[in-house]
Amino acid sequence: MPTTTPPETLGRVADFLRPYAERVAAVGIACFGPIDLDRGSPTFGWITTTPKPGWARADVVGAFRALGVPVAFDTDVNGAALGEHRWGAGRGVDPFVYLTVGTGIGGGAIVNGRPLHGLVHPEMGHVPIPRDPADSFAGACPYHGGCLEGLASAVALRARWGTAPEALPAGHEAWRLQARYVALGIVAITAVLSPRRIALGGGVMGAAGLLERVRRDVADTLAGYVRAPELVAPALGERAGVLGAVALAQEALAERGVQ
Amino acid sequence: MPTTTPPETLGRVADFLRPYAERVAAVGIACFGPIDLDRGSPTFGWITTTPKPGWARADVVGAFRALGVPVAFDTDVNGAALGEHRWGAGRGVDPFVYLTVGTGIGGGAIVNGRPLHGLVHPEMGHVPIPRDPADSFAGACPYHGGCLEGLASAVALRARWGTAPEALPAGHEAWRLQARYVALGIVAITAVLSPRRIALGGGVMGAAGLLERVRRDVADTLAGYVRAPELVAPALGERAGVLGAVALAQEALAERGVQ
Repeated sequence: MPTTTPPETLGRVADFLRPYAERVAAVGIACFGPIDLDRGSPTFGWITTTPKPGWARADVVGAFRALGVPVAFDTDVNGAALGEHRWGAGRGVDPFVYLTVGTGIGGGAIVNGRPLHGLVHPEMGHVPIPRDPADSFAGACPYHGGCLEGLASAVALRARWGTAPEALPAGHEAWRLQARYVALGIVAITAVLSPRRIALGGGVMGAAGLLERVRRDVADTLAGYVRAPELVAPALGERAGVLGAVALAQEALAERGVQ
Repeated sequence: MPTTTPPETLGRVADFLRPYAERVAAVGIACFGPIDLDRGSPTFGWITTTPKPGWARADVVGAFRALGVPVAFDTDVNGAALGEHRWGAGRGVDPFVYLTVGTGIGGGAIVNGRPLHGLVHPEMGHVPIPRDPADSFAGACPYHGGCLEGLASAVALRARWGTAPEALPAGHEAWRLQARYVALGIVAITAVLSPRRIALGGGVMGAAGLLERVRRDVADTLAGYVRAPELVAPALGERAGVLGAVALAQEALAERGVQ
């Protein structure tokens, strides 16, 4: 379904489900954020702040309440982390992080078997990182300028180099910088959370040789002080998010004693 | 007891405990790191890498095995986080972070009621942060140069300004820079872990007005994208570490079914 306005888009999804209402046991939503995950909050289930036009303060969970089934709600990346933890590259690994480097950059984490929530939830794309001395690009994040997402998302690459990331050739300076920035983000995640493994997804990470280059840069930056987490490709590919939403729905049922 | 070599120092502590052996139910150790917390590892209970002369590869837990009681072992800052979580500024708060800014910088975290462990454990002092444009100091960390600890520890302050932090007057440029760097570290922790509250301990944080300035800088840097965690002074002061070790010992007993 095309993403237009919140009422239209969410209405279409709810309409799609309605004929199957008797067969729907739970709904799992892995949603871009930041979102309100606090069940005691009057805006639980809403998207809070977002630069995506029209989607700030959209009530996502509310659109599905009429179905009368449990609605699980988490970030897209916590969903993907849960999907990969259950069925993919994170099986049996805890703490486990899923980091996506695409249009935006985001990370979700599984700690003690559950998606990590806090005051809000992780927003790993917005870690501040040191700018490379050779990089004069101001940064593409409307909130923070040169945070990780602002320097290394597909949007940032396109703005810095004036071309789509997939059109940048293998030897281009862009890839040295990209590996460096993603590695710095991973070092920040490692210093704070010490994950055993990080799955690196998203369109930009598909660039030939990038994962290997990031591995080398992470090792160089940590400089032997602590061990580097394993850095792997996701096993579920682009299905991590959708399978994560399925896992979220299953968890919502399990919490209610339904297996 | 003075800290000299590992065998001498740890031997003295064990000697101190020996006369009380029948009254000692458990030993709790909150230790500087990085340390090996993996019970399956041949070097469990050791300090691993450290620039402190003579202490790399020191077997800390081993010095207390002869007492025949459970020995709990964690980082100094995970201990302090547990102490503050149980009896101080972190009561009822989860996730909760304790960050110390002193000779070194380190952070521990309580997630789901327990100290956060991972591949290793958090090493929050070693997050990479953007350097202030006005700061030409190379950084004091022997591993990473200008990580948070390398730019903002007491050792870094002394090396950059040629004087002890407590001798720097209130209006000195040092404090603008210090608030900025600590705030950037807190923003990184917030982006990765989303703690509800962070207690800021350590000698450097005692500087007049610094906590308030850090609060403002954190809010400015987050720029309203996500809420800032509460930033507070520790309630247990310099006793957080020792009380944390007591809490660790209590946990070790509770795990064995002793209350």
